[in-house]
Amino acid sequence: MKPLDLSLYLVLDPDLCGGPANMISTARLAAKNGATVVQLRAPNWKKRQWLETASALKVALEPFAVPLIINDHVDIALAVDADGVHVGQDDLPAGVARRLIGPDKWLGLSISTAEEMREVPHDLVDYLGIGPVYPTGTKTDAAPATGLPAFAELVAASRRPVVAIGGIHAGNCLALMQAGAQGVAVVSAICGQGDPARATAVLLAEIRKGSPA
Amino acid sequence: MKPLDLSLYLVLDPDLCGGPANMISTARLAAKNGATVVQLRAPNWKKRQWLETASALKVALEPFAVPLIINDHVDIALAVDADGVHVGQDDLPAGVARRLIGPDKWLGLSISTAEEMREVPHDLVDYLGIGPVYPTGTKTDAAPATGLPAFAELVAASRRPVVAIGGIHAGNCLALMQAGAQGVAVVSAICGQGDPARATAVLLAEIRKGSPA
Repeated sequence: MKPLDLSLYLVLDPDLCGGPANMISTARLAAKNGATVVQLRAPNWKKRQWLETASALKVALEPFAVPLIINDHVDIALAVDADGVHVGQDDLPAGVARRLIGPDKWLGLSISTAEEMREVPHDLVDYLGIGPVYPTGTKTDAAPATGLPAFAELVAASRRPVVAIGGIHAGNCLALMQAGAQGVAVVSAICGQGDPARATAVLLAEIRKGSPA
Repeated sequence: MKPLDLSLYLVLDPDLCGGPANMISTARLAAKNGATVVQLRAPNWKKRQWLETASALKVALEPFAVPLIINDHVDIALAVDADGVHVGQDDLPAGVARRLIGPDKWLGLSISTAEEMREVPHDLVDYLGIGPVYPTGTKTDAAPATGLPAFAELVAASRRPVVAIGGIHAGNCLALMQAGAQGVAVVSAICGQGDPARATAVLLAEIRKGSPA
């Protein structure tokens, strides 16, 4: 089991990256330059495409010991022996996902509201993704943005480490760390950037300013 | 493991049935009136909806000993302990699906062409779905229709039982049985029909005319 450092959590997007080959090169550049987790998220893909890309990502990330998390599709995570699964409110419940992946894989859960926080099975999940904190154009079915104060309240209510997501860039990630996040998840701040390596390094430097020493 | 009788294989469609509750009542009526297999296919659903509907279907079908097959999503099949999985050419490869579900579940594979037939791992699959035999409006990404002669050739080349699919109704299922099919798969011939019980019974009577004695 690879250690889970949530500091800079890259969520790969097929459209922003420009297809599978670019997703893999983006993931490699990001991992090399400080991304600590990579999640594959492709809500419109068929499973054959999922399997091929997840397999290639696993190989690409191996040299960096960066865990690969699979969004939503537990069967793909099982098929490629990924490091974990991330589920949202419309996906398999955390309890079902945990039962299928077993105790030795990372499990993350997305929440957006205090009500969803009250329902979190803290004993079954390893971390929470909370957001969108800021408005985002990446996820078309995203909940309304929480804003920073509500995000901080949700973090305070969590008994698991929290990664912030939604509208995050180098200019606002320090504030999220100071609000209690263990890390930030980004999509467009790395995917499709002209220089993903540099974008990653800049983000990481900002995040480190807010990390517990 | 429930026996697999392919004679009348109902593929449930959310839109034609008019939502999950009607899918379950349609499945129950069909099973009661002679459907021998039920597959849940819902390419646009999120997994939470999949899980809830698959769980309810399993309960609904239990009294009739009709196997429940899950299209595409192996994780859902595992979560509800369904009787099997059906995969297409863009889904998980049969070998991966078989590895995940183990030896004691049914596995079906869709093919449309002689080339796909040559690639079939006959030792890993329990049956083939071949089609669309006739043009169909149900599956928007379906391959071109094979027509009856090419269907018969594909059946002859198969080392596994074949269920015909695509544009099938009471008027053409006898011809498909006579072409070597072990059964027929229908969607719109049952889903959304005013009287699904009667539609099922009529189809079954036609199919039985063509069954080996």
